[in-house]
Amino acid sequence: MSNSTPVQTLKGFRDFLPDQARARQFVQDRIRQTFETYGFAPLITPTLEYASLLLGKYGEEADKLLYTFQDRGERQVGLRYDQTVPTARVLAQYQGKLPKDFRRYQIQNVFRADKPQKGRFREFTQADCDIFSSSLLADAEILAVYYAVFRDLGLGSLRIEINDRQLLVNTLAEFATPEVSVFSLIQSVDKLDKLKSEEVLAELVAKGLDAEQAAMALGKLEKLEMSDSLREIVQKATQLGVPATALIFNPKIARGLDYYTGLIFEGKIPEYGAGSVGGGGRYDELIGNLAGLKMPAVGFGLGFDRIVEVCQELGKIPQDAVGPQVFVASFPDAISQKATLDFVKNLRAAAVATELSVTTDKLGKQYKIAEQKAIPFFVIIGANEIAENLVTVKDLRSGTEQKLAPDKAITLLKKEK
Amino acid sequence: MSNSTPVQTLKGFRDFLPDQARARQFVQDRIRQTFETYGFAPLITPTLEYASLLLGKYGEEADKLLYTFQDRGERQVGLRYDQTVPTARVLAQYQGKLPKDFRRYQIQNVFRADKPQKGRFREFTQADCDIFSSSLLADAEILAVYYAVFRDLGLGSLRIEINDRQLLVNTLAEFATPEVSVFSLIQSVDKLDKLKSEEVLAELVAKGLDAEQAAMALGKLEKLEMSDSLREIVQKATQLGVPATALIFNPKIARGLDYYTGLIFEGKIPEYGAGSVGGGGRYDELIGNLAGLKMPAVGFGLGFDRIVEVCQELGKIPQDAVGPQVFVASFPDAISQKATLDFVKNLRAAAVATELSVTTDKLGKQYKIAEQKAIPFFVIIGANEIAENLVTVKDLRSGTEQKLAPDKAITLLKKEK
Repeated sequence: MSNSTPVQTLKGFRDFLPDQARARQFVQDRIRQTFETYGFAPLITPTLEYASLLLGKYGEEADKLLYTFQDRGERQVGLRYDQTVPTARVLAQYQGKLPKDFRRYQIQNVFRADKPQKGRFREFTQADCDIFSSSLLADAEILAVYYAVFRDLGLGSLRIEINDRQLLVNTLAEFATPEVSVFSLIQSVDKLDKLKSEEVLAELVAKGLDAEQAAMALGKLEKLEMSDSLREIVQKATQLGVPATALIFNPKIARGLDYYTGLIFEGKIPEYGAGSVGGGGRYDELIGNLAGLKMPAVGFGLGFDRIVEVCQELGKIPQDAVGPQVFVASFPDAISQKATLDFVKNLRAAAVATELSVTTDKLGKQYKIAEQKAIPFFVIIGANEIAENLVTVKDLRSGTEQKLAPDKAITLLKKEK
Repeated sequence: MSNSTPVQTLKGFRDFLPDQARARQFVQDRIRQTFETYGFAPLITPTLEYASLLLGKYGEEADKLLYTFQDRGERQVGLRYDQTVPTARVLAQYQGKLPKDFRRYQIQNVFRADKPQKGRFREFTQADCDIFSSSLLADAEILAVYYAVFRDLGLGSLRIEINDRQLLVNTLAEFATPEVSVFSLIQSVDKLDKLKSEEVLAELVAKGLDAEQAAMALGKLEKLEMSDSLREIVQKATQLGVPATALIFNPKIARGLDYYTGLIFEGKIPEYGAGSVGGGGRYDELIGNLAGLKMPAVGFGLGFDRIVEVCQELGKIPQDAVGPQVFVASFPDAISQKATLDFVKNLRAAAVATELSVTTDKLGKQYKIAEQKAIPFFVIIGANEIAENLVTVKDLRSGTEQKLAPDKAITLLKKEK
């Protein structure tokens, strides 16, 4: 660009060119459709909030990752860091206007001034779904919609590891010491997924636990059985359509955040190695702490970027989500052009995504444009076609072509869509 | 919220609660679908850019409206102000990677530290559509997709006033003086839409034009006829499906921005008084100036907020875009609950948006929740229904109810959707 302007995005920020943008749009639409089918309502909050709303809500480390600044009206403002705190504000601000047992979803970008690294960005998309209710039916609904999101994306092999945070607290309480809190024990347990149990034992000892005690704690975890409430949630979730095989009790799933109070869960796609695709649980105190109103809640957040990646790797983005299906060539002469524009009009009226070539260059050049855009069908209505009252339809993938009456061609292209 | 946190959005920023969010989503989806059918490809750019990319690109006044700040890495950064400058960056950054005759759309939020007032916000949505080509076929495609956006929203009464900026320049050039540039004349002419012609005359005189000259200039405008290129664009746009009656030549449409070089246009909905719903035109030099690469272009921006308002006022948001269709009551006993959850599962499998009541409170309270959420159908599977193997379907709008076999009820509710 002109002079000193760097022709690039900021570190940690991304452009999405058409192919990527379409894949993201496809996944987002599908997720949104599932959320809606399960009765969740959309909520949109602003990108900017008062900084005081955000600061101190996510812990000291997170405060350093907040994008905050002073605006022209000398207000301290900040960019959205997550969707839970703005939702807590909404719950407080519109008290009485929101329905009882409110269930909402939110799919928006959040901003974190994190060190950019592979798979970690400073602007990324979160998809959250929550029900504000203390009922175990709400927990079951949340597991049902969570599973359905993946099933509807063609990822029905999803395995949901579930646990009860209360069970962990009850089991580990006796091992806590003045130096090592129950939550610190839980944080170590949370690593059993990635580290060997000896390593976790070592960490517990390093934290100040007696070696024997540490081993006993882990041993106790191994033998845990589902709590009654967890059993009830699983039963109801199964009745709501989650395959029983998709719900796996794992007493070592702990989830790092301290605010969970009951059900906790995490999803994994077996065909896809790299860890969790998002998770959540029940958090009955958090909204109260944030917004000063008693509001039990259960919900989850999805790792949207990772889900897009999984869908792409496993071929779950259908061909018709990736751009126009037909490229119609243009010729300079008026008769051909009139027939061409009329054909384009009719294709679009039949809902076939169609690009009219705006150049009347030689056909060879027009082919190249269609190929560059990866458009599968190429239509020609030149002098020969006009004479015969036909159109030529070329399949650029196979190289085959046929001449057809215009209405037959539209039927064919509509079917191919 | 806790302590001093104001429980409110920043001035000029908005929350969209479910009804509003759904209306916006409906309009956005429809617009996107039209853009895709016309062969346009989505582009997504980051919310933050280097401030140097944005500063000085929109004029001095606009620089004051930019949200800029220094990030933690001591970079000067800025929030997206429009979608043209980031697109110019993309065109420069990915030269050679983007296809020839690139046509893209972008629907994203932009930020302006403007004085908040009725209908003007600091974060709002823009929907842009452009083709990067010098061909008049591109102008016709742009008019075609612009019209189709409104037609597909049920606003086919749209009138598009069109003009040729070159025609204005050629006509007004002889009246320009060292004090009053052609563009200054064009800016005054642009007001003929809102002011009386005497007022515009007075403005021209105040700018330093001779009274007789000013009258002559306006008189010449009155008698203008379409340029050859405009005529050609109209012909092609008509062939592409724009009704001839929707395209109205208006030599007094000038568009305030200085960068247009050919076709200019502006849309209005006759049933809706309050002015333009967006417009655009050809700008063959702008991308060159911004990004230092020769890139003729034609396109438009839509006033998304205003279009949502028009659709709402004219009743163009269909009922099924406004939330779940069925609320299914819950009872505490296991047999009823099992049948209820099973029914909910089957409704959702039939793509009927369904909320399961998570409360097993008295029916009266559950009715209230459904009403609060404006859900039209209320389903009961209580002890009576279980005994008869039926379900009760209540239409909350009419107050009528019927008892049906579960599969019949699903067929009914699917049809009502």
